[in-house]
Amino acid sequence: MRAIAVDIDGTITDSSRKLCISALRALRGAERKGIPVIIVTGNVLCFAMAASVLIGTSGDVVAENGGVIYSDGGIRVLGDIEKAETAYNHLREIHPVRKVQFSDLRLSEVAITREIPVQAIREALEGFDVEVYDTGFAVHLTDPEVNKGSSLKLVAESMGIEMSDVMAIGDSENDIEFLERAGFSVAVANADPELREMADYVTAREYGDGVREAIHKFAGVDI
Amino acid sequence: MRAIAVDIDGTITDSSRKLCISALRALRGAERKGIPVIIVTGNVLCFAMAASVLIGTSGDVVAENGGVIYSDGGIRVLGDIEKAETAYNHLREIHPVRKVQFSDLRLSEVAITREIPVQAIREALEGFDVEVYDTGFAVHLTDPEVNKGSSLKLVAESMGIEMSDVMAIGDSENDIEFLERAGFSVAVANADPELREMADYVTAREYGDGVREAIHKFAGVDI
Repeated sequence: MRAIAVDIDGTITDSSRKLCISALRALRGAERKGIPVIIVTGNVLCFAMAASVLIGTSGDVVAENGGVIYSDGGIRVLGDIEKAETAYNHLREIHPVRKVQFSDLRLSEVAITREIPVQAIREALEGFDVEVYDTGFAVHLTDPEVNKGSSLKLVAESMGIEMSDVMAIGDSENDIEFLERAGFSVAVANADPELREMADYVTAREYGDGVREAIHKFAGVDI
Repeated sequence: MRAIAVDIDGTITDSSRKLCISALRALRGAERKGIPVIIVTGNVLCFAMAASVLIGTSGDVVAENGGVIYSDGGIRVLGDIEKAETAYNHLREIHPVRKVQFSDLRLSEVAITREIPVQAIREALEGFDVEVYDTGFAVHLTDPEVNKGSSLKLVAESMGIEMSDVMAIGDSENDIEFLERAGFSVAVANADPELREMADYVTAREYGDGVREAIHKFAGVDI
């Protein structure tokens, strides 16, 4: 294994989005061992970069479910936000949806609060050129041309790392694509059933403790 | 004591900006004891909010050295960025200065990399209506009308807390104003000499370990 790609919310954080100390220690242990950690999140780039700095990860960063990356010292917007805005404008005529906090920082997608069932949103947006993800923290309308997997591949390759050498760890349905593409995939115990179903390994423990378990077991990091 | 106001870089992080686990535990301990933690930073609001979420602080947030606050569920820009931009445009004619990463997210001030000695910057900007801070991480050009102290006061009062009931902890010259205004002020051991000089208490330990020491000693938080 040459890199660890990891989701933030619900994976290295608890359900209230607090960073788990177990995961923090494990990720730093991996970095000390020369295994770079790549943050892969649905959150905005600024949040992702803050997490990267505070944790101390050296890998590049995938934000907005792949719609924005920080790679080779620069920001690239890969998702077309017009697709999401078009869908959102239709949706708000049908349901009382609202965008999450700091939505003006989103460059490639629209994220809305989880007050309306995701199934109702999917039905309302049938025929629209968007992907709809429910992460458990927000509902994301994204450009179907990009996802966490396609953007992680770009980022890893620019770091000189093959996807077959990446261990990916996640918890949610928007993590499926990047877990699928990685050489080895891990779902934490609290993950969505379909993620647990497709992952190479499901941890015994939840949230950050699951991340520590996987990094200890498969990257040989003593914590 | 009814609240703890704390700087981020060099106070709850180490010199490479990694979050100290000792500080993380102490801040969470304070929150568990019902003492809200208010983040007071020179960084942009998005970074400050990310730190707040990942640490799990319940207090409001002061960013950009007081130029931007998150208070009562809304963002307020208090510093006039035109003053900083005017000074910066003059400065770049004299010195090869450049802005730090993500400068387009700054709403009230200009932050520049520390390649030029701060004394040379101060001399070049004599007569300009800006405050110049060297935080050890960047040089900030800010609106003199606002600082971490004036904005912390606004934020604390909107939380129903008097400044006399706030313990403030910092490390750098841009922390002087908020330490001065707080009921009790703490400089971590690695702080600038002038901050150590004016603080009510200087911790024996550096960085996050100093934060833990102060929170244990003065807020009675067992960690």
